[in-house]
Amino acid sequence: MAKNVFFFGEGKSDKNLFGGKGANLGEMIQIGLPVPPGFTITTQVCRDFMITGKYPENLDAEIAEAIKKLETKTGKKFGDLNNPLLVSVRSGAPVSMPGMMDTVLNLGLNDNTVKGLAKKSNNERFAYDCYRRFLHMFGDVVLGVEHSLFEATIESLKKDEEVELDYELSVDALKKLISKYKDLIKKNTGKDFPQEPVAQLKGSVDAVFKSWNSKRAITYRRLNQISDEMGTAVNVQTMVFGNLGESSATGVGFTRNPATGENKLYGEYLLNAQGEDVVAGIRTPRPIQELNNEMPNAYADLVKAYELLEKHYKDVQDFEFTVEEGKLYMLQTRSGKRTAHAAVKIAVDMVKEGLIDKKGAVLSVDPASLDQLLHKGLDPIAKNKAQLLTKGLPASPGAAVGEIAFTAAKAKEMAEEGKQVILVRTETSPEDIEGMSIAQGILTARGGMTSHAAVVARGMGKCCISGAGDLNINEDTLSMTIKNVKFIEGDIITLDGGTGEVFKGKLRVVEPVLSGAFSELMSWADSFRKLKVKTNADTPHDAEVARKFGAEGIGLCRTEHMFFDKERIVAVREMILAHNLEGRERALAKLLPMQREDFIGIFKAMDGLPVIIRLLDPPLHEFLPHEEEEMKEVAEQMDLPVSDIRETVESLKELNPMLGFRGCRLGILYPEITVMQARAIMEAAMECQRRGIKVIPQIEVPIVGNVKELVMIKELIEKVAVEIGAKGKVKYQIGTMIEVPRAAITADEIAPEAEFMSFGTNDLTQMGCGFSRDDAGKFLKLYVDRGIYARDPFQAIDREGVGKLMQICVEKARSVKPKMEIGICGEHGGEPSSVEFCHLIGLNDVSCSPFRVPIARLAAAHAALKYPQH
Amino acid sequence: MAKNVFFFGEGKSDKNLFGGKGANLGEMIQIGLPVPPGFTITTQVCRDFMITGKYPENLDAEIAEAIKKLETKTGKKFGDLNNPLLVSVRSGAPVSMPGMMDTVLNLGLNDNTVKGLAKKSNNERFAYDCYRRFLHMFGDVVLGVEHSLFEATIESLKKDEEVELDYELSVDALKKLISKYKDLIKKNTGKDFPQEPVAQLKGSVDAVFKSWNSKRAITYRRLNQISDEMGTAVNVQTMVFGNLGESSATGVGFTRNPATGENKLYGEYLLNAQGEDVVAGIRTPRPIQELNNEMPNAYADLVKAYELLEKHYKDVQDFEFTVEEGKLYMLQTRSGKRTAHAAVKIAVDMVKEGLIDKKGAVLSVDPASLDQLLHKGLDPIAKNKAQLLTKGLPASPGAAVGEIAFTAAKAKEMAEEGKQVILVRTETSPEDIEGMSIAQGILTARGGMTSHAAVVARGMGKCCISGAGDLNINEDTLSMTIKNVKFIEGDIITLDGGTGEVFKGKLRVVEPVLSGAFSELMSWADSFRKLKVKTNADTPHDAEVARKFGAEGIGLCRTEHMFFDKERIVAVREMILAHNLEGRERALAKLLPMQREDFIGIFKAMDGLPVIIRLLDPPLHEFLPHEEEEMKEVAEQMDLPVSDIRETVESLKELNPMLGFRGCRLGILYPEITVMQARAIMEAAMECQRRGIKVIPQIEVPIVGNVKELVMIKELIEKVAVEIGAKGKVKYQIGTMIEVPRAAITADEIAPEAEFMSFGTNDLTQMGCGFSRDDAGKFLKLYVDRGIYARDPFQAIDREGVGKLMQICVEKARSVKPKMEIGICGEHGGEPSSVEFCHLIGLNDVSCSPFRVPIARLAAAHAALKYPQH
Repeated sequence: MAKNVFFFGEGKSDKNLFGGKGANLGEMIQIGLPVPPGFTITTQVCRDFMITGKYPENLDAEIAEAIKKLETKTGKKFGDLNNPLLVSVRSGAPVSMPGMMDTVLNLGLNDNTVKGLAKKSNNERFAYDCYRRFLHMFGDVVLGVEHSLFEATIESLKKDEEVELDYELSVDALKKLISKYKDLIKKNTGKDFPQEPVAQLKGSVDAVFKSWNSKRAITYRRLNQISDEMGTAVNVQTMVFGNLGESSATGVGFTRNPATGENKLYGEYLLNAQGEDVVAGIRTPRPIQELNNEMPNAYADLVKAYELLEKHYKDVQDFEFTVEEGKLYMLQTRSGKRTAHAAVKIAVDMVKEGLIDKKGAVLSVDPASLDQLLHKGLDPIAKNKAQLLTKGLPASPGAAVGEIAFTAAKAKEMAEEGKQVILVRTETSPEDIEGMSIAQGILTARGGMTSHAAVVARGMGKCCISGAGDLNINEDTLSMTIKNVKFIEGDIITLDGGTGEVFKGKLRVVEPVLSGAFSELMSWADSFRKLKVKTNADTPHDAEVARKFGAEGIGLCRTEHMFFDKERIVAVREMILAHNLEGRERALAKLLPMQREDFIGIFKAMDGLPVIIRLLDPPLHEFLPHEEEEMKEVAEQMDLPVSDIRETVESLKELNPMLGFRGCRLGILYPEITVMQARAIMEAAMECQRRGIKVIPQIEVPIVGNVKELVMIKELIEKVAVEIGAKGKVKYQIGTMIEVPRAAITADEIAPEAEFMSFGTNDLTQMGCGFSRDDAGKFLKLYVDRGIYARDPFQAIDREGVGKLMQICVEKARSVKPKMEIGICGEHGGEPSSVEFCHLIGLNDVSCSPFRVPIARLAAAHAALKYPQH
Repeated sequence: MAKNVFFFGEGKSDKNLFGGKGANLGEMIQIGLPVPPGFTITTQVCRDFMITGKYPENLDAEIAEAIKKLETKTGKKFGDLNNPLLVSVRSGAPVSMPGMMDTVLNLGLNDNTVKGLAKKSNNERFAYDCYRRFLHMFGDVVLGVEHSLFEATIESLKKDEEVELDYELSVDALKKLISKYKDLIKKNTGKDFPQEPVAQLKGSVDAVFKSWNSKRAITYRRLNQISDEMGTAVNVQTMVFGNLGESSATGVGFTRNPATGENKLYGEYLLNAQGEDVVAGIRTPRPIQELNNEMPNAYADLVKAYELLEKHYKDVQDFEFTVEEGKLYMLQTRSGKRTAHAAVKIAVDMVKEGLIDKKGAVLSVDPASLDQLLHKGLDPIAKNKAQLLTKGLPASPGAAVGEIAFTAAKAKEMAEEGKQVILVRTETSPEDIEGMSIAQGILTARGGMTSHAAVVARGMGKCCISGAGDLNINEDTLSMTIKNVKFIEGDIITLDGGTGEVFKGKLRVVEPVLSGAFSELMSWADSFRKLKVKTNADTPHDAEVARKFGAEGIGLCRTEHMFFDKERIVAVREMILAHNLEGRERALAKLLPMQREDFIGIFKAMDGLPVIIRLLDPPLHEFLPHEEEEMKEVAEQMDLPVSDIRETVESLKELNPMLGFRGCRLGILYPEITVMQARAIMEAAMECQRRGIKVIPQIEVPIVGNVKELVMIKELIEKVAVEIGAKGKVKYQIGTMIEVPRAAITADEIAPEAEFMSFGTNDLTQMGCGFSRDDAGKFLKLYVDRGIYARDPFQAIDREGVGKLMQICVEKARSVKPKMEIGICGEHGGEPSSVEFCHLIGLNDVSCSPFRVPIARLAAAHAALKYPQH
């Protein structure tokens, strides 16, 4: 029969079996730290219970034996009138889930042992207070009596006794309360409160195991991507008391400052108190250093202990301790949560201190947390006091304060008046680009993490909150309501793009500062990673920003974004509205010099680095106006009857534009568009070369599903290269996006014709999973809540589905061209778990928006360190 | 060096190398038939030439040698003044492409040899007529002088000579014409007409090879799915003349009647004439049997020859012959084209005659041709005289005559008045179903072969032409124009759904007759095929029709089609518009008894056969009105403010409904819908069992992309089964559609949860290839024209792409469940090449609309006979 119960320190430390808490307590004992003795019931028991609904047959016996051992060790005894053994029963999962599961303290108290505790502590008030707390906790956690009933009982008693605070209750009052609590339990459960400690223990262990599947625990796991299957362990530990008089204390500490990273013990304590008093905020805890004055010996022990802890774990520790009558006990330790800023400093410091190596340093910083470092943030103190209006999706990090504008035009107008603007829209469209670019931040009522607003804002490194469903925008009256609060143009709001929170009024914004430690850490990361990190950039400015963030090239330059400029859109529309080739070519001739200038700017910014330029991708109707008013405007502008515009708009309308006339299909029907773009790229490259700039253009063909499409577009490009004399002079490459499932499946046919490939995982997810990112909002949230997808597949690559398509593609492509350069340029390229997956399947590079480049660099290093064999 | 030139009969008959014509001529010689001697230049030469642009070095020498051999054999000589050798130069590809490539006749004539021909034939007029024809043909085909220039020259000469017909020209006039033709050639090519027969031959061979890539040949190949790569052979054959006097003749024949299949020589001939005269229609040819009176010997030889031919080829032959001065020559033979009716009769007859076996008989009938047998057709004579208005896509076969109605409501009204109606719409939508069902035929201006109109019409076995782009429908004035001809409501038109032709006025319609031979042939087919053939049917009527056509179950019953009924749509809308679960359940309770009755009807019709019922699939907005007028109507009907309707319509609007809130996603968000449907199915099954009907219900979950979706829906169904006591009593199965690429890719995860799988290749094509069938019209036609896809992937499965996804799915599913039953229920299930593919990848069944069931049965037999190892 399997062993289910382990004494702390017994056996090899194993987080998966003992949980984080149990393993740490054991380890602390093993390295000689003073820990109150106890034992762990393994996570295996929990896992089996979840499946079978039963506990192992031998569990009760094992627990009884462990208790006996504990009694021997402490000299105390369960139920003993003079020297009763009291224990805590706590959860402890392999992954920390603070506060999410249940805990029972002071277990072992009953009508008899409370007297023993009173005698031993020489503090009757304390003993009865413990007992009433235990009854409350046990009643709530184990017996399922509503927490609020206990609260109501004590409140009513305090009124009767005419006191205001719990600790003002007299011993007699506490005894009354205990009696009332017992009645409450009897009334609500039909049974008496169990006086027998063994029964108390059995009930508590069961309750703690079951709390693994409490609603809040499940929710927490979902939010933190923790597997439902790992289960929790249960730790039973001898109680020690920090409230046995002035030589007792309790406190918490961090081995280093978790906010700044400073290498100095950080924490606080309370004399003559229990742990919960530190948190409760009734008395103000004192800085930990002051303990040295009051209990120099205990403090010296504590210093020794914390130094030992950090040395042992080679990581910042967050620990709890109690001093019972002068003796220090370490109650818990775990890896300390820290700000990104602190994480970076600590990592670099620890390398310098020789505590960890560079690999460890790189691995100690969560790539996703870097977002905090790279963007403005809100002053946390200001945030605590501010009025939260609603929460949307954290579409693009950063903080922004400004006056509301409901249209892009108005936003521009206000910005020109020198105002700071927040652009608030139901959804944004490509025509809003200019308004978005001058706004401080963007807030939309609809759309997900990959909506237009989100994608563009991330590209701009601009704060954006999307899909804030509480927003009710009335575009006629230029106003909106959020949960019945009305806002008009010019009202000030503040956005926290990192959390999705929208606040009323102006909050203080804190600027990001990149430390030297950051650069140092990133340089280590770069030395480990195998994936190259490129950026998605459509403008020279974005390209420069990304380069500063360490981008090693452009992985995706979307040419269509260049088409929305006010002056250009006229020519674009002229092309679309032309009735024949001649008309289209005339319009394209106007666009040619503009596109050429765009590319010159980008090539210049990327001097020496490769630049992937994607040919025109979106359906043409995206460039046309759709509202009657706008159509009239455009008609006037173009000197055409409005019916012409309407007809073209109508004829280009698509039922499923995602699966419509776009990508290379445009170039196959209208080769002149491809020819113009190829020409602009080649001419720009030649011009740059004349100026001494090193250009490495890679022309990318979008929406290829069939190798013959690629062949046809290639022919057009090659012809242009020959015609303008770029052939042999410019070292261009022609490759393809892999975003249509058919392309992935036939990658062995496509590979011979492609000089590089780049996954467009947004579209690949849409087509592969069969849901449009614009429409999936209706069900995708529920899908993630219900666990159908572990995470939103538009945020992190769906490894089991879309990922498999990617793997098939890589295998097929490399089967015919082993050195095929394959990258990814969707939004996933800057998301750590997706970057890891790209490493695992052997891609060459990832590309992401400029502000995510450092995240991708660090994530790539993590992946390479975790999976060196890939 | 490879041998490029083969004398007829030399070497093993090989169509791929010698072309069909060359191989047949050789075979005819080998079986002892009289064939004018000649030789074949292989298709390999053509293939090489297409790649390298050059002919083999030794080709000229080989041809010279062959000519020498020909001269020896015939005793005639190239360029000989007295007995000149004249040859024909003809193309001959491995697959017949009649009239698509070039031919040169009478080669070898020049200013000298024409005299020899005159002397030998004792017919100067004939000789000079040959010469002027040769000049014309050679000038046009080999030298590239416009055909019209020769025409203009002869026309002008006829005017000068004051004659009306070519053959009225005198010998002198012909000589004048010859001189003018030579001038014309000189003027247009800058060179003299080549008098030298060897030069003539070289030019002609080159021209015939090059005609493989003429525009019309390429177009023909595209239309007939013939590979561009096979190339043509060139046949050089001694000319024989059917016009050397009254003992000469020429004719064509079929070994059996190609229209009726009757086993009787069928053909016609002309005395003293050349082959082209038979076709030209100047003289009326006589029935072939009359030749027996005029040339009993030649006729006896002909009878022997044709009997030998059929016996050798074991197939109806279409042959050409010439009698030169009493001697019969067979000039060509090939498999004879026949009507479907004839094909079936001939196949069955030949088995009875012991000429072929049942396998051969089954293989001799083209599955697609059965469409002709199962549907009404137009009287071909009437068709020839009728006014063709335009041509659309042949969306659903059959013929229909009726008065035009432009709305479904009007169509119904007119039908109720006893009129025959053609429903003419820009596009149809589900709301038109009732109008479609009472119409004789349906004509739409937009939409492809898989548009709503096309799919529904095929399901109904009703004639439909879709995507007739020339139609310009004005719904306000209830009129339309087709190429400027105006039509109003009530005007009569005729549709040929088999060809897509639209005619003005009323044409005679011929009813289909299914012969006994048909049943016999189909029973043979059934004995060979491995694939089961099921049907897509949503009503008891369709189910009965399909069963008569041999369906072995229902492969797809779309429950949503049951929702569009006038009475039901109200309840459906009530459900959609409900604001809460209670409201939805109230509306669903109304639908439950109706759905139950539907299923009872269908189970009854399919007594003893399995029925796959698909749960609700389309996005909910499809059930809502979209026009303001309709919304008002519905609002009144439901006693709701119109704003409510508008809001719901707005909130359900999707950018890409194909990839939206549909399929199992509906049931996961609104489990009550699934519960109602499951209940209706189970209750219907139990009721049927009470009535002694054998029911085998298979519940199919649509749009599954992730196994967890299937698991959740299954749970709902199983719960219903337990609740209503069907568990253990009804032998139901639960399976899934495979239509989302992710489902195909993860079939090994899905398989353990699915009791059957069925490919929805329409959606799989849309998502796999990334084009919506509704929107792809814009480019897909060009894609097929340019050869990017060999065929429209919505018509025939794209084996290289979508087919690969299917293969992956089958392999993965069977890797965990080797006996997994997998079928297909998209529109492809009734298309022969797709059926073949389904056989090749080991599916268990195909399902198609009722009228395609026989096609699928025959196609499945073909596949099994051609690929018995699969």
